[in-house]
Amino acid sequence: MRVAYNEQMNELADLLGEMASLAGAAMEKATQSLLQADLVLAEQVISEHDKITELSAICEEKAFTLLALQAPVAGDLRSVVAGIQIVADIDRMGALALHVAKITRRRHPNHALPEVVNGYFAEMGRLAVQIGASAREVLETRDPERAAKLQEEDEAMDDLHRHLFTVLMDREWSHGVAAAVDVTLLGRFYERFADHAVEVGRRVIFLVTGQLPADLHQQNIPSS
Amino acid sequence: MRVAYNEQMNELADLLGEMASLAGAAMEKATQSLLQADLVLAEQVISEHDKITELSAICEEKAFTLLALQAPVAGDLRSVVAGIQIVADIDRMGALALHVAKITRRRHPNHALPEVVNGYFAEMGRLAVQIGASAREVLETRDPERAAKLQEEDEAMDDLHRHLFTVLMDREWSHGVAAAVDVTLLGRFYERFADHAVEVGRRVIFLVTGQLPADLHQQNIPSS
Repeated sequence: MRVAYNEQMNELADLLGEMASLAGAAMEKATQSLLQADLVLAEQVISEHDKITELSAICEEKAFTLLALQAPVAGDLRSVVAGIQIVADIDRMGALALHVAKITRRRHPNHALPEVVNGYFAEMGRLAVQIGASAREVLETRDPERAAKLQEEDEAMDDLHRHLFTVLMDREWSHGVAAAVDVTLLGRFYERFADHAVEVGRRVIFLVTGQLPADLHQQNIPSS
Repeated sequence: MRVAYNEQMNELADLLGEMASLAGAAMEKATQSLLQADLVLAEQVISEHDKITELSAICEEKAFTLLALQAPVAGDLRSVVAGIQIVADIDRMGALALHVAKITRRRHPNHALPEVVNGYFAEMGRLAVQIGASAREVLETRDPERAAKLQEEDEAMDDLHRHLFTVLMDREWSHGVAAAVDVTLLGRFYERFADHAVEVGRRVIFLVTGQLPADLHQQNIPSS
């Protein structure tokens, strides 16, 4: 029973890690498509998104089977329940990368971004990929200290997001309202991507320590 | 065992219904605070949000205890797993109402909304409350037809959201970029509120029929 549980739980953890990788890769490509107005790359993110949705369904089914066949208890049960919750967060990270790619596609052949904010999005994209990789690492290592570091990375994302808003709100903004709307939504997508990665980390901390870290994040969001 | 399961599952379902009610009530008040630049009401939504977060933790713990002590199987197990997933959606609905209230507070004593979009937000608020009530009803009745109707209500929300964007993108928009940014974020909060309610409905349909409805929604979103 215990051996079967371990084997199936490892499979689930591997799949979650794979999903986190795919979501990070999707955000990396989506950012590149956005910065370069690259339609081919945007289409690739859009068509590859099904893979994340599929894995999400497979993970949910695997967790369900684990509960049904192994009836785990205590810490083992918590791991499976956390797995079910984590699937939803990573699934959402993939959806947010998809949203970025769709904005690239909608504005093509134009650039969605005015040049003045390119630097912000290049950096937010870089951070998103790093945060995605951290989430994967936390899923693999279950290291609560590493998980707590996710929150620092998220704070860097929030800082960027805040600065982006000051650029938008500046009287000098000369790129029109349509561009401001796109930049607002895009900024939000990156910020939410990071939030979901932090949530994955929080679930892992809870698993390992039995306590949820204080929700620092809720106090820090500038625009929400 | 079966009696204990039923009793605990009913308790969980009641709590989820209560959470959905609170989220709907929060969005109703948040909308009123937004339309009337009513700081007192906004503060009320913000301070009452803790109640939703608390209920969310209680629901998760109840679901966990149910799994641990009753080790439900088959349909019963699916109900508990769905409960765990539904908590996250309703929790998020509450957070979105909180975001609306926070924008009201940030802009006070000014109105966050230019008058020209008041009608849109009054209607989006009305729809959000209706969708929240529908979600609660679906949780109570487990009626898959009622759950499917949630998708229609969500389509009405998406239509409004789309129209709102045409107003924003209009060359005649004379309310500046800062207002456009707020309107963009607020529109997104209402749209996501509805999406999460639809997700609750989809989980219930899955529970009752064993099949997920086609994800109509993903094809319909204008701005994401």
